[in-house]
Amino acid sequence: MTDLLLRDARLWGREGRTDLRIAEGRISAVGPSAAGEALADEGAHVEDLDGAVLIPGLVDAHAHVDKTLWGGPWVPRTAGPGLAAAIAYGRDRRAEFGVPNPDFITALLTNMVVSGTTHARSHVDIDPGIGIGAVEAVREGVERLAGRIDVELVAFPQTGILASPGTADLMDEALRAGVKTVGGIDPGGFDGDAEAHLDLVFALAEKHGAEIDIHLHDGGDLGVREFDLIIERTRALGYAGKVVISHAFALCDAGEAVRARLIADLAELRIGLTSVAPRQILPLRELDEAGVTMGLGNDGVRDLWSPYGTGDLLQRTQWFARNAGFSRDADIELALEAATFGGARLLKLDGYGLAVGDAADLVAVAGRNPSEAVLEHPERRLVVKNGRIVAREGALV
Amino acid sequence: MTDLLLRDARLWGREGRTDLRIAEGRISAVGPSAAGEALADEGAHVEDLDGAVLIPGLVDAHAHVDKTLWGGPWVPRTAGPGLAAAIAYGRDRRAEFGVPNPDFITALLTNMVVSGTTHARSHVDIDPGIGIGAVEAVREGVERLAGRIDVELVAFPQTGILASPGTADLMDEALRAGVKTVGGIDPGGFDGDAEAHLDLVFALAEKHGAEIDIHLHDGGDLGVREFDLIIERTRALGYAGKVVISHAFALCDAGEAVRARLIADLAELRIGLTSVAPRQILPLRELDEAGVTMGLGNDGVRDLWSPYGTGDLLQRTQWFARNAGFSRDADIELALEAATFGGARLLKLDGYGLAVGDAADLVAVAGRNPSEAVLEHPERRLVVKNGRIVAREGALV
Repeated sequence: MTDLLLRDARLWGREGRTDLRIAEGRISAVGPSAAGEALADEGAHVEDLDGAVLIPGLVDAHAHVDKTLWGGPWVPRTAGPGLAAAIAYGRDRRAEFGVPNPDFITALLTNMVVSGTTHARSHVDIDPGIGIGAVEAVREGVERLAGRIDVELVAFPQTGILASPGTADLMDEALRAGVKTVGGIDPGGFDGDAEAHLDLVFALAEKHGAEIDIHLHDGGDLGVREFDLIIERTRALGYAGKVVISHAFALCDAGEAVRARLIADLAELRIGLTSVAPRQILPLRELDEAGVTMGLGNDGVRDLWSPYGTGDLLQRTQWFARNAGFSRDADIELALEAATFGGARLLKLDGYGLAVGDAADLVAVAGRNPSEAVLEHPERRLVVKNGRIVAREGALV
Repeated sequence: MTDLLLRDARLWGREGRTDLRIAEGRISAVGPSAAGEALADEGAHVEDLDGAVLIPGLVDAHAHVDKTLWGGPWVPRTAGPGLAAAIAYGRDRRAEFGVPNPDFITALLTNMVVSGTTHARSHVDIDPGIGIGAVEAVREGVERLAGRIDVELVAFPQTGILASPGTADLMDEALRAGVKTVGGIDPGGFDGDAEAHLDLVFALAEKHGAEIDIHLHDGGDLGVREFDLIIERTRALGYAGKVVISHAFALCDAGEAVRARLIADLAELRIGLTSVAPRQILPLRELDEAGVTMGLGNDGVRDLWSPYGTGDLLQRTQWFARNAGFSRDADIELALEAATFGGARLLKLDGYGLAVGDAADLVAVAGRNPSEAVLEHPERRLVVKNGRIVAREGALV
């Protein structure tokens, strides 16, 4: 593979204009673009970035690509209010639109790639109606993208484990089929027995040496109790560093003392969080200071749950920053860190970053600085995955 | 002026593909695009819209174009938390960046035009430090746009009336200089004496036959009391239909009974509201059912207050709809109504709409339906103002 030389970038975290050389899929050199100091372009394909901001590949830490209708018909949402209604609506109408559909999945993944996402974690619906078919559908979509994006899967009991008998066995089957993470959903508020649900989730994880990523929409006292139950099991079973809580609304609602206690436990046990930038905003600055990792995700995009989103994680980052009331550059960059380094830590990506030796997963986006790139999130100028240019100006290469 | 014929539009509110003919700045005919039924193109300049959604010109009901830094340097925001700090920060640093600046104002207005805004109400800072200079700066920017956008001004006491002695006289001067609306700001929470502030605002309005548009960020009991004081004065002084409350956070917080009482009063006195799509979301569906008009605005864009926004009111509409939790098409279209018909009612625009005889202020935006146009808000295909094409594909014509 010919080396790639990216000239005249605003490399995130580095002053001045920068050149970056890539060899064998990794960053091989970084240096100033200034005349006389610039990296030699000998033997390299050269791309002039014209001062675009250069960041590492976006990491979508919470996706549901199996559910998408992207590229398909417009389906007006008619679900009633509330979580249970949305779950039933999605389950009951998906067949009508042929969901999961590898064409839709490919179309959404394509949008994710051209907007700079190089890695994603996607929760895949597992239930008696559909079995583990969604695992195969997502894998097919990912294969069609031919290495332009890595997607790891979560065996996700969208319709419950206890509420949907047979699901535990199907999750077991998905894990045997290579899925690496066990999902869960509102153990008390939706599935009706917090302890039993969580015991099943942790048992499946232990059986397969899998990690855990649990949807927790439950707020208030119930949500806090579920946090405590997860924390208790994580500690007792030696699962530190292997658990993520997604949405985690209870932490947004909680009073200061409870929040501080939970955050201390999360930090101790390296339990990560993900947000999809709803109105309930996780206290990112506080989490960061405590050493708790938060990732950002696109959640469901244009599916039977939600018509929002396009797959562009920078747009989602802007939504998060705005709803968080961030206006300082350092805060907006903290949101961008969640969309990049945060997700990378949750997904345990090796060699992720902008240093020499790191994997060459990179996104160039116009802007005078990272804040402006987030706020305007124009079409990505260039996306590089494993040292290969995979997208340019909003289209696959 | 040659007639203009727009072919093959998805006209908002009408089934099927539609042709629309424009003569003398007004919509002169509307009919199906179907073969054999299409409007004659004789004597007209024809634009094929390829099935783009066609909506009336966007009405930005709450802007602050005088404050913008658009097109200028990137200024990292370093204001402390809270409203008073933001106000002081904006006042103390504007001179450093030459704000208000007709070049910046023109750059932002250009973005507004190319994204389909045909009318705006802009609150213009009036205070002893700057006098009424911002009125002239905005007027200069608007003049440079040469009829592509109409902007009406509000004499806005950003730094208070009581808190900033001399401001009342300057507002009086602005109103003598042709400004048509009197502004106000948190009469109790910021300016320190709710009755005195409101009495000054209403007295200025009565003196000049002006309308009123008051910023009300105050929440809780104070905010509710201020609502009541505004309602009381509106009723006592015969100001029904001439008052707008902007932001109106107290209505978001209020309990059900208080909210219902306030909404009934707003409806009776035709007091309008504006929102700029923050996390605190006005109960738009409830307002609409009660007959209360809400408009949407871009607020400050890329200024010393906020780095957010681009001037695109469809993006703001998407933010409102998402934070409101809207997922049904009818709800998303209700948000779009606020950004169009709602603002038009607040600004009392004559002949606004999509019927024959209405002013030909129109925006074509790609999408299979209005919801999709709002959610994706791609570059506007065509913008027509008073029957003239003023922008195409994101650039001025």
